[in-house]
Amino acid sequence: MIPTSTIEAWLREDLGHHDVTNDVPGETEGRLVATERGVAAGIEAATQVFEYLGVESSTAVGAGDRVDAGDVVFRTEGPARETLRGERVAVNVAAHASGIATRTRTALEAARRVSEDVAVAGTRKTTPGLRGVEKRAVAAGGGDTHRLDCSHMVMIKDNHVAELGIERAVERFRERASFATRIEVEAETEAEALAAAEAGADVVLLDNMMPAETAATVEVLPEGVVTEASGGITIESLPEYAATGVDVVSLGSLTHSADALDLSFRIGE
Amino acid sequence: MIPTSTIEAWLREDLGHHDVTNDVPGETEGRLVATERGVAAGIEAATQVFEYLGVESSTAVGAGDRVDAGDVVFRTEGPARETLRGERVAVNVAAHASGIATRTRTALEAARRVSEDVAVAGTRKTTPGLRGVEKRAVAAGGGDTHRLDCSHMVMIKDNHVAELGIERAVERFRERASFATRIEVEAETEAEALAAAEAGADVVLLDNMMPAETAATVEVLPEGVVTEASGGITIESLPEYAATGVDVVSLGSLTHSADALDLSFRIGE
Amino acid sequence: MIPTSTIEAWLREDLGHHDVTNDVPGETEGRLVATERGVAAGIEAATQVFEYLGVESSTAVGAGDRVDAGDVVFRTEGPARETLRGERVAVNVAAHASGIATRTRTALEAARRVSEDVAVAGTRKTTPGLRGVEKRAVAAGGGDTHRLDCSHMVMIKDNHVAELGIERAVERFRERASFATRIEVEAETEAEALAAAEAGADVVLLDNMMPAETAATVEVLPEGVVTEASGGITIESLPEYAATGVDVVSLGSLTHSADALDLSFRIGE
Amino acid sequence: MIPTSTIEAWLREDLGHHDVTNDVPGETEGRLVATERGVAAGIEAATQVFEYLGVESSTAVGAGDRVDAGDVVFRTEGPARETLRGERVAVNVAAHASGIATRTRTALEAARRVSEDVAVAGTRKTTPGLRGVEKRAVAAGGGDTHRLDCSHMVMIKDNHVAELGIERAVERFRERASFATRIEVEAETEAEALAAAEAGADVVLLDNMMPAETAATVEVLPEGVVTEASGGITIESLPEYAATGVDVVSLGSLTHSADALDLSFRIGE
Amino acid sequence: MIPTSTIEAWLREDLGHHDVTNDVPGETEGRLVATERGVAAGIEAATQVFEYLGVESSTAVGAGDRVDAGDVVFRTEGPARETLRGERVAVNVAAHASGIATRTRTALEAARRVSEDVAVAGTRKTTPGLRGVEKRAVAAGGGDTHRLDCSHMVMIKDNHVAELGIERAVERFRERASFATRIEVEAETEAEALAAAEAGADVVLLDNMMPAETAATVEVLPEGVVTEASGGITIESLPEYAATGVDVVSLGSLTHSADALDLSFRIGE
Amino acid sequence: MIPTSTIEAWLREDLGHHDVTNDVPGETEGRLVATERGVAAGIEAATQVFEYLGVESSTAVGAGDRVDAGDVVFRTEGPARETLRGERVAVNVAAHASGIATRTRTALEAARRVSEDVAVAGTRKTTPGLRGVEKRAVAAGGGDTHRLDCSHMVMIKDNHVAELGIERAVERFRERASFATRIEVEAETEAEALAAAEAGADVVLLDNMMPAETAATVEVLPEGVVTEASGGITIESLPEYAATGVDVVSLGSLTHSADALDLSFRIGE
Repeated sequence: MIPTSTIEAWLREDLGHHDVTNDVPGETEGRLVATERGVAAGIEAATQVFEYLGVESSTAVGAGDRVDAGDVVFRTEGPARETLRGERVAVNVAAHASGIATRTRTALEAARRVSEDVAVAGTRKTTPGLRGVEKRAVAAGGGDTHRLDCSHMVMIKDNHVAELGIERAVERFRERASFATRIEVEAETEAEALAAAEAGADVVLLDNMMPAETAATVEVLPEGVVTEASGGITIESLPEYAATGVDVVSLGSLTHSADALDLSFRIGE
Repeated sequence: MIPTSTIEAWLREDLGHHDVTNDVPGETEGRLVATERGVAAGIEAATQVFEYLGVESSTAVGAGDRVDAGDVVFRTEGPARETLRGERVAVNVAAHASGIATRTRTALEAARRVSEDVAVAGTRKTTPGLRGVEKRAVAAGGGDTHRLDCSHMVMIKDNHVAELGIERAVERFRERASFATRIEVEAETEAEALAAAEAGADVVLLDNMMPAETAATVEVLPEGVVTEASGGITIESLPEYAATGVDVVSLGSLTHSADALDLSFRIGE
Repeated sequence: MIPTSTIEAWLREDLGHHDVTNDVPGETEGRLVATERGVAAGIEAATQVFEYLGVESSTAVGAGDRVDAGDVVFRTEGPARETLRGERVAVNVAAHASGIATRTRTALEAARRVSEDVAVAGTRKTTPGLRGVEKRAVAAGGGDTHRLDCSHMVMIKDNHVAELGIERAVERFRERASFATRIEVEAETEAEALAAAEAGADVVLLDNMMPAETAATVEVLPEGVVTEASGGITIESLPEYAATGVDVVSLGSLTHSADALDLSFRIGE
Repeated sequence: MIPTSTIEAWLREDLGHHDVTNDVPGETEGRLVATERGVAAGIEAATQVFEYLGVESSTAVGAGDRVDAGDVVFRTEGPARETLRGERVAVNVAAHASGIATRTRTALEAARRVSEDVAVAGTRKTTPGLRGVEKRAVAAGGGDTHRLDCSHMVMIKDNHVAELGIERAVERFRERASFATRIEVEAETEAEALAAAEAGADVVLLDNMMPAETAATVEVLPEGVVTEASGGITIESLPEYAATGVDVVSLGSLTHSADALDLSFRIGE
Repeated sequence: MIPTSTIEAWLREDLGHHDVTNDVPGETEGRLVATERGVAAGIEAATQVFEYLGVESSTAVGAGDRVDAGDVVFRTEGPARETLRGERVAVNVAAHASGIATRTRTALEAARRVSEDVAVAGTRKTTPGLRGVEKRAVAAGGGDTHRLDCSHMVMIKDNHVAELGIERAVERFRERASFATRIEVEAETEAEALAAAEAGADVVLLDNMMPAETAATVEVLPEGVVTEASGGITIESLPEYAATGVDVVSLGSLTHSADALDLSFRIGE
Repeated sequence: MIPTSTIEAWLREDLGHHDVTNDVPGETEGRLVATERGVAAGIEAATQVFEYLGVESSTAVGAGDRVDAGDVVFRTEGPARETLRGERVAVNVAAHASGIATRTRTALEAARRVSEDVAVAGTRKTTPGLRGVEKRAVAAGGGDTHRLDCSHMVMIKDNHVAELGIERAVERFRERASFATRIEVEAETEAEALAAAEAGADVVLLDNMMPAETAATVEVLPEGVVTEASGGITIESLPEYAATGVDVVSLGSLTHSADALDLSFRIGE
């Protein structure tokens, strides 16, 4: 759910002080139509834009649903002026989120060809101001949302390890973080990964390893430790990582480099 | 310039209520490094994030500058805790904006191969909340920012024309819009384009025309009328449009489908 | 349209933490009545205040309509407590905007006596926080809204000219501004005005010229260049400028020195 | 003191998304100069605008000081780009507030000619969003700020009286309001005024009475009760009311109909 | 009434970016039930939380009403997802405010045992962000809200007195504050209290005096001066102060140290 | 770290539109002093209030440090007016947070008498608007912060179980929540607790069980499952629960019913 004040900021930046173009009398109907195949997301955000403006909407597909070219995503009905004023913002947010959901689904399908249960996750590389929208779009695409914010899971990195050693670093953060919080440790070698698991890490991040090294490391880690492969993985190289037995493969590009899904808003019956 | 309250919203969504991971004592230095070739943008926004947190920064390249893999974009110096807390948000905004500037530059170079002066423009298809950041990134890439918001230029569309006819529509908006405001008319045929020019449009948008039709229409339009080609144009098809003699070619993908530029923030000397 | 968060700020500053006076049970009707002759504006803002509070409203006159003493502007119906709490803010914004519309209409009528088509424009001398409300009030009065913000039109001033010369200044800004953006050049002499037109300015501002000099300069400028007279023009001296053949006369006083229109909110049937 | 988020809103509405005009390199000095005689106010707000932008300022006159044409109000020093970007907003707020202070001083001087101690007060008829700025401007002009918001003082009006009678109304509000809160009662006749005083009103508002009736009513009211004349009083009729012996005369026009003071911002040495 | 943007901030901090737990389909009913005896407050704030989320509510008790364990405070009906999402925030605000109202009522009852008319007042020692909610909760408990903010009443403290002496301090603030504003003077001895009354203080604060000294001072002060006892008074010592004849006894603990009232939200019929 | 816009909201609600009392010239020093024994927290928030106003501060104790009556918490130096204006808000936030830290420490010490490693945790029963401040105060007191928001950890409650059964409920949320997110299941009986552990819950909440039942259930649960006792536990009954072998005991009263710590701000050297 998007806060009212965020929707206002989105509309304000698009409309300016005196929008003459859209100052049109009467009532109108509209519909958001997919013009290419993909996965729908951001629909709740888009319809909230219209509802804020007093334009009613009824959705035809839900977040995570497949859409094909020509499919109606939602319909609107209300004052023409407000419909036209909401259009651009509503399309922008839905196209952006649907692009992320679509890219996530593509990645997931690539992974599924080699593994039945590997998770494909996003990262914190999201567009400033849209963390929630983009995380929910990753979920709509079937992806794992990963750390929602820095407070969600502790991440022990090389500089912590350099200072304290892995064992003391895990111990220290276990003390300071809530029992509700998982602890992940970044490892760049098998030895580090083992040390992290030994020290009690909940999750071990295998950072910038090649697929073979990833597989070997997963092999030796004790059961119960969640393993994540990350660092420079593309949709092309994803299946190689998915085949290593790792639990999670994460890709920043799900959010930061997804093409918008092509959506079009059509006015009139 | 990004408002303080926007920077706060960006940081709040990334940090959460109790960020244990980054609660690190001491001072540190950092640097933002390009890890692939591109065009820098969003640097002012990124350094403002650090400055808000009390971390000083000094920039090595300006908006619009070319960067190669390995180039330092800016350096920081300040408390380790605040440097770590600002890192993700700063990188996200710079990588996003630089991705747009880079894509714009690529498009512009494609156009320059066939035309010395055609403008390559963005659209209003920007990410909600980032209109200013993205428009300035288009400018940094050498692109034309086009309509900044609905109040900037009047756009007469098919539904206006359907209701009033081109002549009366232009006349009506000329009356209602300021002398400071240009008027653009969407035309789908040569005949409509001529009628729009006749009626006094400042700019005629040749919407969804093939390159040959675009060229033919540009040919017959009177001098002084600015012409814009738009609708489904990709970087691949851009040169064909650029060669038509049109003044402006606009692409939504400059902002809505640009891959982030690969940037990395490195801690320590 | 006023953002909800703005309406909240307006109400918060008027009500304070514990408003005992207006804590009245029951339902009531109310009406906003003009108590002197003028032009209505700010009505949408005023009714939004009531709607935010859950008080329904029905408008009797539209923005730009003439009202005489005794005319009802809009009626309300809803809880007495919320009606009383919204009253002062709603009247304040409507009286302020209507005052601007009224002053604009007076200026326009003065200009119409000597010219059929000269535009009478406001400036950026608006009350901080009310740019949109005041620009729309100028429009309601029949005035030209002029530059809505700095990004709307480029304005080349004396210091730019001092540094670059008129020709290079225009060329430079033409390069940096969008095709969607007009360029205006301030000229203090006929020679400067001619140089600006020559250099390709869309609009030439004749700054602080006497009416005779204004007329002489307008005479020699090429057709197609929009001309604006500005600087110290009052409603009294406006007709002299309107008679010079200039396209636009602008007055800061339309927004910064308009008396509020006398409006009264009456409770009960 | 103006909140940072308010200053940001003021600047955002004036600058827009891509302000090309003011994108000027280098450092500059500036000064705000009065171009007509008046009373300074809003100076703290104006310098805060510059300070937010990183432009330093030093004030030459304080709130409430007399200025003559040519007097410098404050000087600035800093980046040219930020100086130019702050200019319009800073001038607008200072000119608006100084206009109110000047009008208040004029009213006060008119009253002082006939009474040594009558207070001249503003009302809650302020511009939405500027309650604090305008109340402090009234104070700078030597006026009484009156009720700052609805929670500051209880105001018993005709509809309360109609429902409860004066005595019970006063009693009821005395019970519900804090001991820190004064209670004022609106009276339209001498009889009502006496009843209000009898019932224990701290302040009696003599509403829409002629000067003679006002004087007669003041005469008969017991000592210790503060008396206020209000309703349709202009600067012209103010002395007649000031001479009646009333303690306070209030005028909505101090805030809602004050002409801006003519101020000019000059760049360069 | 709580501003929408405040309700959004409350919900945002409780829900985070991707709340999986409460993502439940269907409609549901709920009710807020008191699980211990106390005084209800904060109900309007709590129901506004639900209404913001599109969940309807109907209240069974009003602010200030006594509730016993098992009593229903209000009922809700609406989408299960939104009901669950609003629950925690709604309960938190109602339990907090009701705790303050309950403590205030307890204090008031303790005072009533020895005095029929002494007021029991809160202070400005409220939780940041909740001034209005807590002041209205004090009122619901039957307490006096005291100064709502610094602008509501002038408070002359020891440092003012040290600098100017009591007489000149009162005179100076009388000059600078509105007639609508009461003036209170802090006195630490009977002599100071007398001097304050002499100088024209509306209210004299007997600061940190023992009950006997308080009574003696109240005795000698002229009628018409409001007296307040404050400083380290607890609910236990309150009756001793209430018996001194003082008009007001104030306790910071009404707001800063009230236990939450035990309330429980129950889902389902 | 408190956002600037939050600090502004806190100050605005305390100062009002025209604060005459604190309008004092000159510079001053101040210090925040503990007037009773406790644990310091909220210091960073309090000093940020002063820094926002341009008053410098230097802290003498850190979050989590013990303070005794008479201990200085921090010192300030700056303009008297701004020091006085920040005082109340700064004291309020520090006293509130320190009260929570103090209560948490008391609870922790009670638990430590019977168990070396049981965690004492807060809940989501925090004051609206202060989630981060209060969670960090719990941490300063040595407590466990528990779920920071709904997105931090999944909580499966009785209504989920009623609908799906424990096994399917855990499975379903495991699918929908990130690998980064722990899953807690509420159990009211030993049988439910075992089923939850069996189904793969990370944490089992033993809800409203007596100490003996709690101990018995903890005994039979498999290792590796975190156990939490909750529901109506007071500081008095806490040791009994702490002695059961449970991993975590949580108490809403740490945040919702902590008395403020007595702190006093003193002006002058």
